[in-house]
Amino acid sequence: MNDARLEVMPIGVVESELTDRATAPKQGNEGAPEAWLVFEPAVLEGLEGIRPGDQVIILTWLHLARRDVLRVHPRDDPANPPQGVFNTRSSDRPNPIGLHEVEVVSIDGRRVRVRNLEAVDGTPIVDVKPVLRRK
Amino acid sequence: MNDARLEVMPIGVVESELTDRATAPKQGNEGAPEAWLVFEPAVLEGLEGIRPGDQVIILTWLHLARRDVLRVHPRDDPANPPQGVFNTRSSDRPNPIGLHEVEVVSIDGRRVRVRNLEAVDGTPIVDVKPVLRRK
Repeated sequence: MNDARLEVMPIGVVESELTDRATAPKQGNEGAPEAWLVFEPAVLEGLEGIRPGDQVIILTWLHLARRDVLRVHPRDDPANPPQGVFNTRSSDRPNPIGLHEVEVVSIDGRRVRVRNLEAVDGTPIVDVKPVLRRK
Repeated sequence: MNDARLEVMPIGVVESELTDRATAPKQGNEGAPEAWLVFEPAVLEGLEGIRPGDQVIILTWLHLARRDVLRVHPRDDPANPPQGVFNTRSSDRPNPIGLHEVEVVSIDGRRVRVRNLEAVDGTPIVDVKPVLRRK
């Protein structure tokens, strides 16, 4: 493994009624409740231009994940043959970065309400990007 | 800014004929050449199940980016009004994580050839995920 170390700084945190990784939906479109993204005051300027109704990608740091796992049963179902973690959306992986496509519902200062986020309460947010649709 | 520090470990590196950020395509579908992803031997097991023809998402660490920028002119064009970086795909952002949707062309041991990658030569790779299509 390469020795270079790259440091991520949280830019905010997820506030959600989901608190248990085991019972949270596996994907945001599988029954996730609405949740708040609460951003650090220092990065608010970076949100300029984002509006209710926008589809955005949230990158999170899946702080409850295991980083020493390279093969998993997809969807935690032992009936599924093991796969390399990079061929799954498992949160267990060497760099536990979560990728979530969500819809912005409303914006209230540094609090952004979103739909379709399966991350649990307390998950650090590390980036936000607009969705680019294929031409 | 939150004090928690989260550390990313590179799992591989991009080999590309693109060497200059200024002249590289802004998005992978805007004329990026084929490139190699060269993975660390320690993580190869994690690639099991990925096949030529698969569409995958590559997360990279955009090591040439500025992390102290919160507003940019989209697409580096001064004619575009400034936007918050989180409403753009600018590589300059607090956590310079690149998100690239690529197609796997071939796999040769720890070298994976891909199409549509705009990252420059030497860019660290931090994660690989399958593309999930909307239902």
